[in-house]
Amino acid sequence: MHPNDPKLRSFIGVDPSSDFPIQNLPYGVFFTPDQPDLRVGVAIGDFVLDLAALEAAGLIRFENATGIFARPSLNAFMALGPQVWTKTRARISELLRHDHHELRDNKELRNRALVPRNFAQMHMPFEVDGFTDFYSSKEHATNVGIMFRGKDNALMPNWLSIPIGYNGRASTVVVSGTPIRRPRGQLKPPTADMPVFGPCKRLDFELEMGVVIGQASAMGDMLTEKQAEEMIFGFTLLNDWSARDIQAWEYVPLGPFQAKAFGTSISPWVVTREALEPFRVKGPAQEPTPLPYLQQKGANNYDLRLEVDLKTEKLQKPAVITRTNFKYMYWSSVQQLAHHASSGCAMNVGDLLGSGTISGPEKSERGSMLELSWGGAEPLDLGGGVTRSFLEDGDSLTIRGWCQRDGYRVGFGEVEGTILPAL
Amino acid sequence: MHPNDPKLRSFIGVDPSSDFPIQNLPYGVFFTPDQPDLRVGVAIGDFVLDLAALEAAGLIRFENATGIFARPSLNAFMALGPQVWTKTRARISELLRHDHHELRDNKELRNRALVPRNFAQMHMPFEVDGFTDFYSSKEHATNVGIMFRGKDNALMPNWLSIPIGYNGRASTVVVSGTPIRRPRGQLKPPTADMPVFGPCKRLDFELEMGVVIGQASAMGDMLTEKQAEEMIFGFTLLNDWSARDIQAWEYVPLGPFQAKAFGTSISPWVVTREALEPFRVKGPAQEPTPLPYLQQKGANNYDLRLEVDLKTEKLQKPAVITRTNFKYMYWSSVQQLAHHASSGCAMNVGDLLGSGTISGPEKSERGSMLELSWGGAEPLDLGGGVTRSFLEDGDSLTIRGWCQRDGYRVGFGEVEGTILPAL
Repeated sequence: MHPNDPKLRSFIGVDPSSDFPIQNLPYGVFFTPDQPDLRVGVAIGDFVLDLAALEAAGLIRFENATGIFARPSLNAFMALGPQVWTKTRARISELLRHDHHELRDNKELRNRALVPRNFAQMHMPFEVDGFTDFYSSKEHATNVGIMFRGKDNALMPNWLSIPIGYNGRASTVVVSGTPIRRPRGQLKPPTADMPVFGPCKRLDFELEMGVVIGQASAMGDMLTEKQAEEMIFGFTLLNDWSARDIQAWEYVPLGPFQAKAFGTSISPWVVTREALEPFRVKGPAQEPTPLPYLQQKGANNYDLRLEVDLKTEKLQKPAVITRTNFKYMYWSSVQQLAHHASSGCAMNVGDLLGSGTISGPEKSERGSMLELSWGGAEPLDLGGGVTRSFLEDGDSLTIRGWCQRDGYRVGFGEVEGTILPAL
Repeated sequence: MHPNDPKLRSFIGVDPSSDFPIQNLPYGVFFTPDQPDLRVGVAIGDFVLDLAALEAAGLIRFENATGIFARPSLNAFMALGPQVWTKTRARISELLRHDHHELRDNKELRNRALVPRNFAQMHMPFEVDGFTDFYSSKEHATNVGIMFRGKDNALMPNWLSIPIGYNGRASTVVVSGTPIRRPRGQLKPPTADMPVFGPCKRLDFELEMGVVIGQASAMGDMLTEKQAEEMIFGFTLLNDWSARDIQAWEYVPLGPFQAKAFGTSISPWVVTREALEPFRVKGPAQEPTPLPYLQQKGANNYDLRLEVDLKTEKLQKPAVITRTNFKYMYWSSVQQLAHHASSGCAMNVGDLLGSGTISGPEKSERGSMLELSWGGAEPLDLGGGVTRSFLEDGDSLTIRGWCQRDGYRVGFGEVEGTILPAL
């Protein structure tokens, strides 16, 4: 049976509400208190399956390579290429099936290789080579454009022709659970003559998906749709923390810099492109027709539900502040990647592409505080007398995402970050 | 004697016009036809001194580390920190002095360790972790501003308060001598309704210095002037190749992306900050006074002459198209670095900061074709009936730079790139 077959069952019991059934098998890097070496695993139900242990036991093998999973990142595995990704996923799926004996009946190995997820400490899943952030939701670009530049200049003339993106900062991409220090920076309210340096007052999140590039391309090369597709290893949840006041003063003419350099959070589990295959949907109609190098035959969006929770000190339970869907994106990840390489820009194993903030057509589907509170003009009511225009110290923000089928979901877990006060 | 002492002499004869006297000792990574392993060396006169050979012979030692110079990049050496940089440079200087015997009188080692420079093939000197490009010449920003946005919006209101910069693309930073493929991209002349995809027609260079960061800072930390200073390992020449027509259509609102992603060239020799000490000068007066985190006590510019040659198929000899000086920069490298970390952005060993295009007050001191030909309105006359507004296929562009003293210069060698036709 194909690893995506809905009828597959594992000998490990998985609750239907779990993000991690046998149809998912997302990769992550973890360690345990009793074994502090970082190593690669996949999530299955309430467990992490230790792939380094399976490789050491000879149950997973690679041609001309050893210890691929006994490493502190997925980069070496990703570098082996899409055929190895497919073969390895099929093998892991086989080893976990209820009707397959190799792991199921090897009690000693099973005890070593299956780590309860709450004993596993998750680490950054891969070394980020470069981080590029796109701006590909038409609803988000329009909302922000209205607030930053007024209604007449909201959507720039180039936006419908180019998957607009900019180079982000790779050094501060961190895994879920890492606290985020409120940044300081230059702030100049429109009414002030001169800027001051101080703590950001308009601290925001951006709900995004991260695209993990698993194959390199050479400097000078362009990519076909198929080549771009096959370079995508998988996806994570991504929160592109943003300092709106720093951004407003610094971003003309060369784009965001310190406003987005202080932290970007990703979920620890990389859900493979293969696991998301059953959830492909067509994206919005693109008008005008994209230039040939950006044209796509396939359905390259995903029906992937996204939800954001905000927890504050005064709230008894987290408030859901947005529910949206990855399918709304105007430009797909494949189009973003094809554009990224179009000038001859070399792509590397470990490049991370942010989708851009994911906002939907409804007000309740917006992917940032800036849009949800309309720049602070309409503070969000979180209940219990608590309101928010932007994030406050101590706030904890969590993004969750999953694809739903009858009887199971293919999910991402979560990406969480808590705001620490500025130094 | 201090390694910068003008009276120092080496037992290796060095011509007064050489970029590489004993007062310089820039680091690079090289290999030779007979020994293809990459290794670290310093340039001295017409030779490369093989530091891996000296380390293997026990003439250079590090505490708790071996094989530091038998590596394909400077990163491991840089990570050892500024005290080790100082000590190592002093030791290399000692070993090369005319009145010191250890290397001079060891004929066998001397023959192995001193490689004629034209037998050495130079490689990228370090692994670029992140590449950030600044925009810190007031003359350049003003010139470009007038052409892109008109005289009234030339220098943005934030420019005098912020060392404006953006994240560049590290994957396509290449060493001198690497050919540069003319990029393709979206072009939309102001008169056209829709963009087309095709070869760039306004291909440009940007004359810059590269700042090589040799120490890391932690996420969340800011830097004092002294800390920023001590993180700078050295400098290279840098050419930030730019596609002006791609840039004009893509850059609003998130800044340059594919217009500058296809290639950035650096010189193979990293001249240390220490070697440039004698050439420090004060930069231009800064008015308004910078915010406290950007204030500097020291003289943090350098009197460093820069020259650009253009060689075309039809010219008998290269034409000098600009002569300028690094001292004109409004924002210093230390200010750029302090700003870069100001939001809490982590800096890494191997980060490369581009100074921004270096233009001087005179027309003959401009650092790009865009400025020299005023956007193509005033084509440059190269002599022999050859003119240029932008770079053409087959053109070879070379930047040279050096600091001059009576009797010797501390130079950078060159960074060269030749334009290949678009695919």
